Amino acid sequence: MINIRTTKEETMEQLIKRQAGESQDVSVVVADVLKQVKARGDEALKEYTKKFDHADLTTFKVSAAEFDEALAEITPEFLAILEQAKQNITNFHEKQVQRGFVSTNEQGIVMGQRVLPLETVGVYVPGGTAAYPSTVLMDVLPAKIAGVSQIVMITPPNKEGKIPAAILAAAKVAGVDAIYKVGGAQGVAALAYGTETIPRVDKIVGPGNIYVATAKRMVYGLVDIDMIAGPSDILIVADETAQPKWLAADLLAQAEHDTLAQAVLVTTSEAIAKEVQAELRQQLAVLPRREIAQASIENNGKIIVAQSLEEALTLANRIAPEHLELCVAEPFALLGKVKHAGSVFLGHHTPEVLGDYFAGPNHTLPTEGTARFYSPLSVDDFIKKSSYLYYSKEALQASADQVIAFAEMEGLDGHARSMAVRKESKQ
Amino acid sequence: MINIRTTKEETMEQLIKRQAGESQDVSVVVADVLKQVKARGDEALKEYTKKFDHADLTTFKVSAAEFDEALAEITPEFLAILEQAKQNITNFHEKQVQRGFVSTNEQGIVMGQRVLPLETVGVYVPGGTAAYPSTVLMDVLPAKIAGVSQIVMITPPNKEGKIPAAILAAAKVAGVDAIYKVGGAQGVAALAYGTETIPRVDKIVGPGNIYVATAKRMVYGLVDIDMIAGPSDILIVADETAQPKWLAADLLAQAEHDTLAQAVLVTTSEAIAKEVQAELRQQLAVLPRREIAQASIENNGKIIVAQSLEEALTLANRIAPEHLELCVAEPFALLGKVKHAGSVFLGHHTPEVLGDYFAGPNHTLPTEGTARFYSPLSVDDFIKKSSYLYYSKEALQASADQVIAFAEMEGLDGHARSMAVRKESKQ
Repeated sequence: MINIRTTKEETMEQLIKRQAGESQDVSVVVADVLKQVKARGDEALKEYTKKFDHADLTTFKVSAAEFDEALAEITPEFLAILEQAKQNITNFHEKQVQRGFVSTNEQGIVMGQRVLPLETVGVYVPGGTAAYPSTVLMDVLPAKIAGVSQIVMITPPNKEGKIPAAILAAAKVAGVDAIYKVGGAQGVAALAYGTETIPRVDKIVGPGNIYVATAKRMVYGLVDIDMIAGPSDILIVADETAQPKWLAADLLAQAEHDTLAQAVLVTTSEAIAKEVQAELRQQLAVLPRREIAQASIENNGKIIVAQSLEEALTLANRIAPEHLELCVAEPFALLGKVKHAGSVFLGHHTPEVLGDYFAGPNHTLPTEGTARFYSPLSVDDFIKKSSYLYYSKEALQASADQVIAFAEMEGLDGHARSMAVRKESKQ
Repeated sequence: MINIRTTKEETMEQLIKRQAGESQDVSVVVADVLKQVKARGDEALKEYTKKFDHADLTTFKVSAAEFDEALAEITPEFLAILEQAKQNITNFHEKQVQRGFVSTNEQGIVMGQRVLPLETVGVYVPGGTAAYPSTVLMDVLPAKIAGVSQIVMITPPNKEGKIPAAILAAAKVAGVDAIYKVGGAQGVAALAYGTETIPRVDKIVGPGNIYVATAKRMVYGLVDIDMIAGPSDILIVADETAQPKWLAADLLAQAEHDTLAQAVLVTTSEAIAKEVQAELRQQLAVLPRREIAQASIENNGKIIVAQSLEEALTLANRIAPEHLELCVAEPFALLGKVKHAGSVFLGHHTPEVLGDYFAGPNHTLPTEGTARFYSPLSVDDFIKKSSYLYYSKEALQASADQVIAFAEMEGLDGHARSMAVRKESKQ
């Protein structure tokens, strides 16, 4: 199980050393897949889907009949939960909508910034055990709110060429325009270059395995991408008012995602540390995804005893966790000390799981310490800005000499002349 | 010189085919540079600086004495222009500052989003003929406004180990914290990994050659980067009220940057098209950077006659230019039709050059059609967001069943239990 340590020991540097960008190199394989899809389009997609997903498809697009079939499989209760989650997520993300601005002055200068939606977005939804309808809602709804006119989704099919019903239902609820059954690097390539059936998009979002992540990195610049997601992580800061049973359950909820997931508890109470250790053992014994969770806990789990909440927060900021739970008596008093965290869960009654599905904030968050510079997925990810400028004749004349001097200093006479021809003109 | 064509001809597809991500592959060379700098730090930087920049440095950091020397070289007039440009750029970018938000409800749910500055940012400033003090202002000032606490700049030295005085002066005016004399992929590596003397940063911004761009792409994820910048471009839409002499000067201002730069005129007037063609010939003859501008015009220059402004704007949107001049009688009437453009210059008296230095909007703009999804560099590039969530005991109880059902649907029992242990508790 997890050893209990103090912040004085080597654990701190070990935790911080867990950094992004250190993953397996599959770029040679992925580069070839990209090249093939770019050159041969749908034909290459079919070959790869047969090879990697063992599905022999004649067409990629999910049909209306398939949607109907999926919706018939879903219980009305679950559909109602999806709708409520949609409402909560929408309420939160609508607050993110940016407006443009304009400034005018008496000289006759107008300048401003417009906010415009992206036109076409591709959402990658992983297959297999990681097929989560919540991901569909979290990735699609901010794009809808931003005003994206075409949202396409890709996801790998199973051997029978099918997509899970819950994924199709979530796509329907979220308002996806089309779904294509293709995954992996080949799916990313299709979205980046476009094929006969799959439209080229402006941005690709969504989590995926190392092949998907590498493909996204390689097409970055040709299209935009969201952050490169690594294994998920949580850091829980707990004082003596926390419930060991709840803390252990929260650590395991993280650990069951992936053997590479990281669950860390930093507590000011040695008693809590020991009780959580015992609770982990008990709860693991009856957890269905025990094998995954146990491997995660053994590889990356840590319980650390800190001298003070101050010290605990210093450690949290150095780790920059994806999820940060503050299971303390006065969580709001600590919020201002948090410098780097994807999403913060305040108090004893706010388990991270609330943020995974339902509450409203996005669950697509920066992993592996990248909360230092990345943000949760938001409406901002689906817009772009465009600036504009207008000078009156008088305003141009008033600033011409300064601009000409600047251009000459940079050795760009053509730039200076573009001002000078106007300055000298009677027009 | 440039042939005049109409939008019916093949030019349209040719223009649109000029897309990002198609550049020379130097990734093998760059990967080795990254590896060496990561492993050997300053020692590797010294070797590469000797090899590539022919400068034998003992120390990378620009000293206070070097700053003083540079400021003594700069005229008070130019310093005043830099200060005025700083003021204008600051005024515009201060309008971009985002605030967080919070929402509360009667159930006892609090959720919100905080906006936090990045801590450390690295600014790349190219050397040689592309050493522009304006780039220093444009890249550094938004970071200052965002509240970044440490801004370091790197730029390759000349053979004598020096940096141009204008660059150092602009860095001083902008408020850079430290400058290091290192460029190329090795400079990017130093910022991404940190060395004995150069701090590791959270984000790298600034233009550079293919080696710099490739290095940025390869470290993306470990640190954040700004967009991958390609050759600069302009598209001018002109009606019959435009001045051919001014249009030609504006095209050449773009063309003199780089033989790969692209300058395109789309006009509704065949007479204007012909006069601009003649003007280009005359003005090129006396342009100091004639060779570069002529190559750019011959390779990538186009004059296109459109049937209507509507048609011209459709073409502009398909190209998604970095700079879009609307040299027409009623430019504001066209602004709403612009869907994809980095920065728009409205009317006859607003040459693009105004935006390069002085007016206020940023000159770091999306190139090669990437205005479809990228934005001008802004204060937003130097902040990150962090969401937070608080549920009261009552709010948790009210939503527990729905969250548990959602978790079970996704097959994540550990997630369901994290809710269930709280639901069942008397605490």
